[in-house]
Amino acid sequence: MTTAGYYAAVDWGTSSFRLWIIGEDGAVLAERRSSEGMTTAAKTGFHTVLDSHLAAVSALPHLPVIICGMAGARQGWKEAGYIETPAALSAIAGRAMTVPDVDRDIRILPGLAQRGKQRPDVMRGEETQLLGAAALIGGGRQLVCMPGTHSKWVRLAGDKVEGFSTFMTGELFDALSRHTILSHAVAEAETFAAGSAAFADAVSRATESPATATNLLFSVRAGQLLHGTGAADARAQLSGTLIGLEIAGALAGSPQSEDVCLVGAGKLGTLYRTALESQGLNVQVVDADEAVRGGLSAAARAIWPL
Amino acid sequence: MTTAGYYAAVDWGTSSFRLWIIGEDGAVLAERRSSEGMTTAAKTGFHTVLDSHLAAVSALPHLPVIICGMAGARQGWKEAGYIETPAALSAIAGRAMTVPDVDRDIRILPGLAQRGKQRPDVMRGEETQLLGAAALIGGGRQLVCMPGTHSKWVRLAGDKVEGFSTFMTGELFDALSRHTILSHAVAEAETFAAGSAAFADAVSRATESPATATNLLFSVRAGQLLHGTGAADARAQLSGTLIGLEIAGALAGSPQSEDVCLVGAGKLGTLYRTALESQGLNVQVVDADEAVRGGLSAAARAIWPL
Repeated sequence: MTTAGYYAAVDWGTSSFRLWIIGEDGAVLAERRSSEGMTTAAKTGFHTVLDSHLAAVSALPHLPVIICGMAGARQGWKEAGYIETPAALSAIAGRAMTVPDVDRDIRILPGLAQRGKQRPDVMRGEETQLLGAAALIGGGRQLVCMPGTHSKWVRLAGDKVEGFSTFMTGELFDALSRHTILSHAVAEAETFAAGSAAFADAVSRATESPATATNLLFSVRAGQLLHGTGAADARAQLSGTLIGLEIAGALAGSPQSEDVCLVGAGKLGTLYRTALESQGLNVQVVDADEAVRGGLSAAARAIWPL
Repeated sequence: MTTAGYYAAVDWGTSSFRLWIIGEDGAVLAERRSSEGMTTAAKTGFHTVLDSHLAAVSALPHLPVIICGMAGARQGWKEAGYIETPAALSAIAGRAMTVPDVDRDIRILPGLAQRGKQRPDVMRGEETQLLGAAALIGGGRQLVCMPGTHSKWVRLAGDKVEGFSTFMTGELFDALSRHTILSHAVAEAETFAAGSAAFADAVSRATESPATATNLLFSVRAGQLLHGTGAADARAQLSGTLIGLEIAGALAGSPQSEDVCLVGAGKLGTLYRTALESQGLNVQVVDADEAVRGGLSAAARAIWPL
């Protein structure tokens, strides 16, 4: 078996590391997942983390590696800069940085930056996911929602990112549920059902009255004190309020009844789909893993043509 | 000198303790301030904390004590329940709870509760501040803003609280500036100037587009990365975004150009005054300390008539 045309594709986020070994025909030959994201790797060493995963799948010494995400941040492995919006996704591969002083061909893809003074914004990793998602959904004008710690909403026109907005939804959920008075209300439940009425109700209230979001948040605590709201419902309310606020903000100024492409997976994908559909939006779902692998593969084929 | 008619007035919050010795004529004879709020006192003992401060001002053994705030919460010293809205402020004193098994007359005032399923809400301490503020501002219909960790906005009609809304502004500021990616943007400044253009600009953007609040929050970080925004400006942006969001929410559904009574003090009072006036509101300022002392005194005179 020859391994020419094989490569490793890595999505290296702030708190997660995912690696796939991709064959010449695009098939996934092996997969590794760990919590050794940038925060961990900045301490233990990016090279050490990558090598340990490559060794675990018995990767050959010359196997090239393509990386997207926070490994390209200033505080990452090798700064990969930003492409500025409006940006063609096809330009990403050409701006990859080569990691110096390693005995293997390792490239890190750049992020995207929106430099306007009014709404400056950045992404790292999602641009590669977008590159893969754009190929899956076909051309045309699209509003793309990429939920997560820092959710991204992207205005895509074919291959071009016209602009984007980051909402701190996931990180706010963590900070509120751990470090505020709401921790008392949610502590006794680790999760809630995606079909929860409390979630749907909170989405509805936050989208109807987004300005009152921090009042809706406090009512989670007051509801526990006055009505004995259970922890799972409280957690669902917190999540629904923040996701509803995000959707209201993302759609502010957009035409009604738009189609949305949701790049998601798992429970979070289900929650966003529920919330978006409750607002009358047509939702096309693209699997988040498939999208990022597709984007990494497209960039790899551009850098190392067969 | 006789001390009949004297009493100690205590505002006992979650994280702060304030005590005044009040003479028969209402004059403040002594004052104590400490960080031994409910959180601390629940560990070291409420009686111990109170006694140490009374001893420090050489209070006589029979001096009665009136208390408002979190000392009356379920997890406080002696649960003092809630009066339900719509609520007459004059009813507060009549619902005070007597602390049992102590060798001194100690009364804890109840809080207010709004039990509706849609927007349940609670306050403890602010009802007493309102009682004092209402006497200072005269009668009539008033919108009262009481900024803080959990800001309260109250619809007051004479002596009656028609309803109120809590906004988690102060606690969100703390959680965001300490426990999220925004901590990198604000860490190097402990404060910012109240007249800061960055604050005014953030208030303006958040009130214009409250739905996009969590995007405005992320832009604080992006502005640091892309434009080198300094830490003091970043902190001002964070504060202005959250205060602007609160004001937009509090005024949602209210008629335009309303008068607002601001019960505030210090830097926070100045920030709210700036933000409220920037929205074209007429602001009447009542000193927060004076208001809570006034409310405690009114309740004391009702409980222990001269």
